[in-house]
Amino acid sequence: TSTKNGLGATERVSATFEARISTTNHPLARKLLEIMVAKKTNLCIAADVSTTKELITLADNVGPHVCIFKTHIDIISDFSDDTLKQLQGMATKHNFMLMEDRKFGDIGATVANQYSSGVYKIVEWADLVTVHALPGDGVIKGLVSAVNGRSRGCVLVAEMSSQGALTNTDYVKNSSKIAEDHTYFVMGFVAQGSVSDDPRFLLMTPGVQMEVLNDNLGQQYVTPHAAVMDKGADIIIVGRGITKAEDQVDAAVQYKEAAYNAYLERVKQLQ
Amino acid sequence: TSTKNGLGATERVSATFEARISTTNHPLARKLLEIMVAKKTNLCIAADVSTTKELITLADNVGPHVCIFKTHIDIISDFSDDTLKQLQGMATKHNFMLMEDRKFGDIGATVANQYSSGVYKIVEWADLVTVHALPGDGVIKGLVSAVNGRSRGCVLVAEMSSQGALTNTDYVKNSSKIAEDHTYFVMGFVAQGSVSDDPRFLLMTPGVQMEVLNDNLGQQYVTPHAAVMDKGADIIIVGRGITKAEDQVDAAVQYKEAAYNAYLERVKQLQ
Repeated sequence: TSTKNGLGATERVSATFEARISTTNHPLARKLLEIMVAKKTNLCIAADVSTTKELITLADNVGPHVCIFKTHIDIISDFSDDTLKQLQGMATKHNFMLMEDRKFGDIGATVANQYSSGVYKIVEWADLVTVHALPGDGVIKGLVSAVNGRSRGCVLVAEMSSQGALTNTDYVKNSSKIAEDHTYFVMGFVAQGSVSDDPRFLLMTPGVQMEVLNDNLGQQYVTPHAAVMDKGADIIIVGRGITKAEDQVDAAVQYKEAAYNAYLERVKQLQ
Repeated sequence: TSTKNGLGATERVSATFEARISTTNHPLARKLLEIMVAKKTNLCIAADVSTTKELITLADNVGPHVCIFKTHIDIISDFSDDTLKQLQGMATKHNFMLMEDRKFGDIGATVANQYSSGVYKIVEWADLVTVHALPGDGVIKGLVSAVNGRSRGCVLVAEMSSQGALTNTDYVKNSSKIAEDHTYFVMGFVAQGSVSDDPRFLLMTPGVQMEVLNDNLGQQYVTPHAAVMDKGADIIIVGRGITKAEDQVDAAVQYKEAAYNAYLERVKQLQ
């Protein structure tokens, strides 16, 4: 098999995060891997809260334990520019990346506007955004057209965790193809299982909870250990398991340790 | 074949809009068909403008000639509650429906929040919203959970007009199945060609321009006549062909007449 900077081109799950840094030229992928190694965390918090106060409190609580803080900025009821100012302050304080889970899914010309303008001006503050490959690669080109020299990247939602999702094998394969054609912007996938063995791409898996239950709107869960060991997740995305916990810090630490230990176990087992 | 209130269950393209009113129990589908008949228009404007003033001027200009005013509210840079108040005033003045082209594409619990809360509170003002079937039917259930007694509906984006879109035959078929399972909320499709022959569902086709050109971000265009006659569109969605025209009213009238005449021709030919 081909190699990328000395590392096998298909060794995503067996390589350490340290070793993967040199396989990618994407500045934010490198930065993210460095954060993960330095903070010993592969936990992304899904910050599904509805007020600025809850958002910033959560960021300050879980900040030391996460590598990515994933937002739905469009559900914050009292959003203002100050929300973003405080959020960026937390990102600096705790050294995590901001990912707006916008799931862009429109034609290029439209997503370029949705990314850069309107009330949220996402491109100005979110290091990363999530994107559906559904519209074809014009969605990537549209986003890139709005980046304007900033250090930005995206993660393709290759697979969804909800019941009856239409992200079938073909869909996953096509998403992977689009990622490979646009590695200057795409730095990974959101998926339930491995999309690519390429060590440049980070696999982020949502729908993770310690206790495996389903909600009543079609969401399906796996444990941190199963996500990382069995499904090959590099980063687990946890929402309600932490945000609804009585003690957010304690819950974040538990998820962080479960996921990072599973990663160490995986690498050890495969090497 | 089965019949629905006397009309063949597969006569979507051959039936008149008048005849289709009685085939559906969806209050907004009925209302929309009534508007289309009364105003003799099957034109939807894609209001891709970036300020409140442009939005309201466009609504007042093209209002008499459209059945749906399709917004991307998240690209309006000076958005405020007053934007919505003025927009709703225009909808009442000119008797058109408001459709927020949000392309919801997340799990049910998330879209419920995106629909009802945050800055835009879409459910409070948009009669219709667009939705990707990608997450499975939890996306529909999530939206419905936020409707709270209002008269609301959605249109499934079954197919995209952009180059390399991943909306293949299976995807279209699965979208159609989800629509059939949720006719109390889904009232039609956004697609490039016929998704269903069921006369209850309205087919809306984007990517329509008088002059057939592509933009440089993957968008592909068809003419109004081809969209309605050849592809079976009930409603054409026109953006830049009208918004960028020197005379918006003149352009709207031209698109309206081209599309409505094509509809009359189609029905005449098939009956």
